[in-house]
Amino acid sequence: MKLLKKGSKKFDIIAIGRACIDLNAVEYNRPMEETMTFKKYVGGSPANIAIGTSNLGLIVGFIGKVPDDQHGRYITDYLHDKGVDTTQVVKDKEGRKVGLAFTEIKSPSECSILMYRDNVADLYLTPEEVDEAYIRETEALLISGTALAQSPSREAVLAAIEYAKAHHVKVIFELDYRPYTWATQEEVSIYYTLVAQKANVVIGTRDEFDMLEGKENGDNQTTVNELFKYEPDLIVIKHGVEGSYAYVKDGKQYKANSYKTKVLKTFGAGDAYASAFLYALFNGKDVETALKYGSASAAIVVSKHSSSEAMPTVQEIEQLIAEQS
Amino acid sequence: MKLLKKGSKKFDIIAIGRACIDLNAVEYNRPMEETMTFKKYVGGSPANIAIGTSNLGLIVGFIGKVPDDQHGRYITDYLHDKGVDTTQVVKDKEGRKVGLAFTEIKSPSECSILMYRDNVADLYLTPEEVDEAYIRETEALLISGTALAQSPSREAVLAAIEYAKAHHVKVIFELDYRPYTWATQEEVSIYYTLVAQKANVVIGTRDEFDMLEGKENGDNQTTVNELFKYEPDLIVIKHGVEGSYAYVKDGKQYKANSYKTKVLKTFGAGDAYASAFLYALFNGKDVETALKYGSASAAIVVSKHSSSEAMPTVQEIEQLIAEQS
Amino acid sequence: MKLLKKGSKKFDIIAIGRACIDLNAVEYNRPMEETMTFKKYVGGSPANIAIGTSNLGLIVGFIGKVPDDQHGRYITDYLHDKGVDTTQVVKDKEGRKVGLAFTEIKSPSECSILMYRDNVADLYLTPEEVDEAYIRETEALLISGTALAQSPSREAVLAAIEYAKAHHVKVIFELDYRPYTWATQEEVSIYYTLVAQKANVVIGTRDEFDMLEGKENGDNQTTVNELFKYEPDLIVIKHGVEGSYAYVKDGKQYKANSYKTKVLKTFGAGDAYASAFLYALFNGKDVETALKYGSASAAIVVSKHSSSEAMPTVQEIEQLIAEQS
Amino acid sequence: MKLLKKGSKKFDIIAIGRACIDLNAVEYNRPMEETMTFKKYVGGSPANIAIGTSNLGLIVGFIGKVPDDQHGRYITDYLHDKGVDTTQVVKDKEGRKVGLAFTEIKSPSECSILMYRDNVADLYLTPEEVDEAYIRETEALLISGTALAQSPSREAVLAAIEYAKAHHVKVIFELDYRPYTWATQEEVSIYYTLVAQKANVVIGTRDEFDMLEGKENGDNQTTVNELFKYEPDLIVIKHGVEGSYAYVKDGKQYKANSYKTKVLKTFGAGDAYASAFLYALFNGKDVETALKYGSASAAIVVSKHSSSEAMPTVQEIEQLIAEQS
Repeated sequence: MKLLKKGSKKFDIIAIGRACIDLNAVEYNRPMEETMTFKKYVGGSPANIAIGTSNLGLIVGFIGKVPDDQHGRYITDYLHDKGVDTTQVVKDKEGRKVGLAFTEIKSPSECSILMYRDNVADLYLTPEEVDEAYIRETEALLISGTALAQSPSREAVLAAIEYAKAHHVKVIFELDYRPYTWATQEEVSIYYTLVAQKANVVIGTRDEFDMLEGKENGDNQTTVNELFKYEPDLIVIKHGVEGSYAYVKDGKQYKANSYKTKVLKTFGAGDAYASAFLYALFNGKDVETALKYGSASAAIVVSKHSSSEAMPTVQEIEQLIAEQS
Repeated sequence: MKLLKKGSKKFDIIAIGRACIDLNAVEYNRPMEETMTFKKYVGGSPANIAIGTSNLGLIVGFIGKVPDDQHGRYITDYLHDKGVDTTQVVKDKEGRKVGLAFTEIKSPSECSILMYRDNVADLYLTPEEVDEAYIRETEALLISGTALAQSPSREAVLAAIEYAKAHHVKVIFELDYRPYTWATQEEVSIYYTLVAQKANVVIGTRDEFDMLEGKENGDNQTTVNELFKYEPDLIVIKHGVEGSYAYVKDGKQYKANSYKTKVLKTFGAGDAYASAFLYALFNGKDVETALKYGSASAAIVVSKHSSSEAMPTVQEIEQLIAEQS
Repeated sequence: MKLLKKGSKKFDIIAIGRACIDLNAVEYNRPMEETMTFKKYVGGSPANIAIGTSNLGLIVGFIGKVPDDQHGRYITDYLHDKGVDTTQVVKDKEGRKVGLAFTEIKSPSECSILMYRDNVADLYLTPEEVDEAYIRETEALLISGTALAQSPSREAVLAAIEYAKAHHVKVIFELDYRPYTWATQEEVSIYYTLVAQKANVVIGTRDEFDMLEGKENGDNQTTVNELFKYEPDLIVIKHGVEGSYAYVKDGKQYKANSYKTKVLKTFGAGDAYASAFLYALFNGKDVETALKYGSASAAIVVSKHSSSEAMPTVQEIEQLIAEQS
Repeated sequence: MKLLKKGSKKFDIIAIGRACIDLNAVEYNRPMEETMTFKKYVGGSPANIAIGTSNLGLIVGFIGKVPDDQHGRYITDYLHDKGVDTTQVVKDKEGRKVGLAFTEIKSPSECSILMYRDNVADLYLTPEEVDEAYIRETEALLISGTALAQSPSREAVLAAIEYAKAHHVKVIFELDYRPYTWATQEEVSIYYTLVAQKANVVIGTRDEFDMLEGKENGDNQTTVNELFKYEPDLIVIKHGVEGSYAYVKDGKQYKANSYKTKVLKTFGAGDAYASAFLYALFNGKDVETALKYGSASAAIVVSKHSSSEAMPTVQEIEQLIAEQS
């Protein structure tokens, strides 16, 4: 199976969803109350994956909305500098803001985020602002689950998926569940289910698949049996330090262990994972190898201070895999 | 093809969506400014279809939300008196109101409606208030398009559809497009498309299918070709006085002319049509005959003062068909 | 003391606030669930007082906002027909509606109202829509307390009061407290206090003065002592069937008993009271006589089916006073 | 005249309004897009004045609302450490956030602020959360104009003023106009006028008094003539580098020039001014001397990186006055 073909279209991947600002504690290993200085990075799962896959050599575009202010311009410039096409990054005209994430790093295992997500520009992308012609030109469309949390971003994503299906563009669904933007858990389950049924590849943690199913302690086999009734061909379910699993529609399944690393903070692991996993699939690696790329990439990012800025190179990933195999 | 089987489950049809109050001009053939008295009727497309099909002998239930006030109690009592099961009519606890429709009948061809639809109870039905066990007990679930216009009613309907699909309950989608509750036309197209792809039967006017497709002057054949790629087996497209068309997935198509009648007002025609068309299908009539039942039923209702109260009997319908064949 | 001078300006009174539609039960002495027909009347306290005082011969204007729909046009036309100047009745352009009051008359002592007050045009009158030049031309400005319930109507009224004070226009504050539009009781107390301190005449029920003071079972003497520290010269406190009291800043106080009548419903009594009381003051009656006019007018309206349409004539009022004195 | 008496009550000043976080550019003299690091300070005009006056030796309390998150706790702790009583700093329970101000310092004359003010906790202080007994214990209540921008904070302030008036507490109104929180300019004028009429001391820039009056290029003499009809005894109007003017109800007026300083940024000048001006009045200085204290304090703060942290000592202020007199 060759699910994702590199170079067959103008873009390998177009990501849709939020791009925001992380404000990472400069002084860490302490409560945020005692952190007096913060360093600015681009953040947001689909922006991180756009940067991560572009870093690794894929041709990447981004669809999103940012304000015409200092933070919005910084994000657009940063994406552009990282090689991501920003022609479809829409300027908000209503005075909305970029979302912010102040990160608190008390210890490697105690990290938390103070979010500013009220009235953020990214959730106001409208269906009219999504260009069917742009989506037609990509091999794959990467959907971030958070973009489904509110209208009109929700409908912008649903429209993007319809365009993708009409033009045989593969849909990759990164569940990316963040509790703070959703009204109810029922809504999460309803829209995650709708979109997962239409996606070709679904990637998430076990907890995120539980949100999709609207229940607790779900079982991987039940999950994939249900989703394989619909469009999905490949499903990746991540179990943290226990490793990650890939399920293919033909019945095969694979597992990768997590790599040992010196953890500084846990943020950014999922985005680094998705970036490297997708890079590997696009470059003809088999699913089992792609899982290793994902795990290694995640291990590298959690040892560093930022997410977007720390997205690893192919060499770094392959070196870690070699070291620990 | 036997699409809908009468008596196979506890209910033949469960309708989900709004039930409201029509305030019909007692003095008519004049502008509403000169109408001083209004008569109260139950209204709302899915409520009318529930009443209409119950009148014709089907076993019918209703899922909706009304306030615990005088109008809400009137609606629930009226549905109950008409034989509709109201155990799933939820009481709103937030001070919302029943929607109102003041009808203005200037002349048989000049009718308009003054709607009160701000903060109406029906649009606040939540997914949690939809009971999977109830839906499992019906042969068919009737979706009214207006219930998709706003959250959380939108998600309640999407949840109801997932339950229906899980239990092999047929989904009938009456497009029932009303402009006043939708935020944008793009949203109409997005959600109508999502739901139509999952429905077994889709019924609407040509204009409503244009809203679904997000374009003007659509062509029936293009419409049905696209929808037949998905779940639909039967699609009815109504062209007003020119008659109505039915398209079956196997390629057959049928037409019924409209019946001559003395028009008092145009309201209620679609609900009367759907009621009789579904009645006929449930009773083993072929699609062509079912179209005639629909047309005849519509012709009867437009000659009378109300919608719900004027839903015809089988005898009245069959008599009109006989008279004009 | 001659508080209010008739004919000294272009207008005797300009009222500001809501005009809406009453839908009165045609079949009464029953719960509304059993009322099938409703008769349409103009309603809303300041509209009723405008109509009531115009009926009695004062020169009256009205500042308010109604939609450009059938109900809005009916209201404007009706006010105009009753002799009220409607040049400052603004048309709402945002799709808002006229407020509705369905009246339920179970028995003379059991009346209730089912209100439709969500997103009503009257509460969206803006300060920019209040014309200083118009207010300058009146002897008195009548404020309805309900117009203070929400922004921007609240600020429109506060602006109108500033204009009135700048041009030595008397401010009459009819407390007109309706619970359904206020966010909290604290807000009622805050804005009622602010406005009462600036008003020359304050009229309300004992319960309404309790709302102003933010406490229960208030005492008239305490109430008037506090308010007489500020602008008020005359305060009327109504105690229902026990009668009504007037307090003058110079220390005098008066009482009028209520008149015997055959009560049909209780709606409209306060508006009829204020209309006749103000008429009497404008026509040089002393305060004690004015109280009698108010009481008699209220007694007449509660014996009739409507409020606005039933506003009595001078002759009717004086006849009742004569009969029961 | 001894307007403000130090030590006569438990508190000299209680300030009411916002406390937020300033994120000041660590790398400055450049656009914010190129600033990568931000330093955290407590900000917000009334919080700064509370800190500033406490620094100078007054006994100060603060009434406000902050979330129970890392930023909220930092603010409360910082105020407490600076000697400000925080027993009336209410914890928000609704997930609202602290307001943020990212400062951009392109050059000493080109400073701007990127504000995060959507759904901020400070604007959700309610009237019920303002304690009459607390306000009774202060000599003066300092109102920040921004706290009037939205409900329910607006009503909380109006309630606080009523409590102050009832207990003969002096009301000081710092106009503190910030455009981003107000719905319309008419609202600014309406509420600034209402509050200024009830205040004993009013302090603002000429531009802020223009907002109060709802006009442009107002004239100081007209402004003070109008306000002296009401409660105010002392009005300070600041004209930037041209200096500042004080007007006393008895007709006297005073001017202070601005002090020469090396400007780093313009933020915080007004809060430093008010702090030192009030300190001087409380300590028995005459109005002319108090103006000098205000000007000198402002000159010191604009030469430093922060606002709250840079609030000067009495010694620094008096030294600058001595140097430049």
